[in-house]
Amino acid sequence: MQPHIVHLRPRYAETDQMGVIYHANYLVWMEMGRTELCKARGFNYKDMEKDGVFLAVTEANCRYLSPARYDDPIAVLTTVAEANKRLVRFDYKIQHADTGKLLCAGFTRHLFLNANLQPASLPAKYHDLFGILTRPA
Amino acid sequence: MQPHIVHLRPRYAETDQMGVIYHANYLVWMEMGRTELCKARGFNYKDMEKDGVFLAVTEANCRYLSPARYDDPIAVLTTVAEANKRLVRFDYKIQHADTGKLLCAGFTRHLFLNANLQPASLPAKYHDLFGILTRPA
Amino acid sequence: MQPHIVHLRPRYAETDQMGVIYHANYLVWMEMGRTELCKARGFNYKDMEKDGVFLAVTEANCRYLSPARYDDPIAVLTTVAEANKRLVRFDYKIQHADTGKLLCAGFTRHLFLNANLQPASLPAKYHDLFGILTRPA
Amino acid sequence: MQPHIVHLRPRYAETDQMGVIYHANYLVWMEMGRTELCKARGFNYKDMEKDGVFLAVTEANCRYLSPARYDDPIAVLTTVAEANKRLVRFDYKIQHADTGKLLCAGFTRHLFLNANLQPASLPAKYHDLFGILTRPA
Repeated sequence: MQPHIVHLRPRYAETDQMGVIYHANYLVWMEMGRTELCKARGFNYKDMEKDGVFLAVTEANCRYLSPARYDDPIAVLTTVAEANKRLVRFDYKIQHADTGKLLCAGFTRHLFLNANLQPASLPAKYHDLFGILTRPA
Repeated sequence: MQPHIVHLRPRYAETDQMGVIYHANYLVWMEMGRTELCKARGFNYKDMEKDGVFLAVTEANCRYLSPARYDDPIAVLTTVAEANKRLVRFDYKIQHADTGKLLCAGFTRHLFLNANLQPASLPAKYHDLFGILTRPA
Repeated sequence: MQPHIVHLRPRYAETDQMGVIYHANYLVWMEMGRTELCKARGFNYKDMEKDGVFLAVTEANCRYLSPARYDDPIAVLTTVAEANKRLVRFDYKIQHADTGKLLCAGFTRHLFLNANLQPASLPAKYHDLFGILTRPA
Repeated sequence: MQPHIVHLRPRYAETDQMGVIYHANYLVWMEMGRTELCKARGFNYKDMEKDGVFLAVTEANCRYLSPARYDDPIAVLTTVAEANKRLVRFDYKIQHADTGKLLCAGFTRHLFLNANLQPASLPAKYHDLFGILTRPA
């Protein structure tokens, strides 16, 4: 499966006094990556929440290879690395969009929650979105 | 009435590539100021929300005089400048805590909302908190 | 002069527990507005800083009329409201991009600084960018 | 070695529309943890940067066990898990300060950089700070 790609420009607000993007902001860009991946597959995460399906982050990891800077052209590549009815893992590569240079790589793990924010099985209509194979009867 | 004072240290995350605190973060420090002012007067804003009272920001203003820097000792001085059953205005002064130098000054205006996030009259039990005089019958 | 328009989608990171966009984030969107206005007029603010020209925020103001929500289509309209060699004021309107509904309106004032972060006169080559009339000799 | 403990209260700005603290903010609290650990050992990270020693994050990891909420009493426990002249790893536990409940656990890895932001050997005067044993001649 091809990764889904989102483009963005780092904001001045996201820089720090070392002159580069503060490391926690890459996790926010990963959030943009998975929001847009869902959208590209026909579901808005916004609507999933209204439908009582929440994705709670259970782990986040990021390895930083080279810094992004203010207003650089950035590409976030997002893949569904693993998914079942209980959880999903997204993998991310963040690159300089012009040179293709890899700036960081990471993943997030999520648990599906219901409207009471309790762990729950993902409703069948969302299985395709995450590439979950539904065993036929 | 004396202003309520909160102390804090700017985080590296709050700096920008100009080597100073990014300007939007002062609004977050003002939020800390009013949270702690409420607490000092015996109410947790957290509990007010559970009680169905929300403060929605309707205006924010900040004049920047001198920059704060990472890990500086900072004091946020908060005052209830104006309040009635419908709205409240807080005034703020943000100072270098050691020198007393004024770094910025501003205000926020808020509307009281009910649990449906609609404008509503502030319940009487909170009038004292904001210094609202309740006219006797 | 027509306002310059930037489109964006609010991030989940920008929401708060009231279910709307936290008020300080609108100042960051204003930053995106002026960054892109400069770019549309042929200058990157990034390059201006390398050239020793910095814009320090001296005042920010925002009136909040209606809340933006996660993933809403948002338009930021930016105008140079006032400018001379010492300072510039940008005005902003932030709208729901589909309905045109005004969500907030505000302004930021800035002082031009040199590479030592001291107030300085804006070099002539940037006068056009801000619509500053240069008096002929 | 005992972990160093910092106390904080989550800000409203740090919540998201799920009603809990947005996951990227825990990385910022980890930054507060290591800033204060250095201070407790007699060095300000602020002064280390002036002295030409920078800590660049090369990896961040966080496992989320239970959500923190607005204004909860939070304790960040920080330990130097590994250090040599080239790099350092900090481990963190973030707990509800009253109940001791573990909310998340993580680590950050850092490379020491010099004033040109290039990898460099940590000057000897900082070895004690990170518990680096200096082999006698």
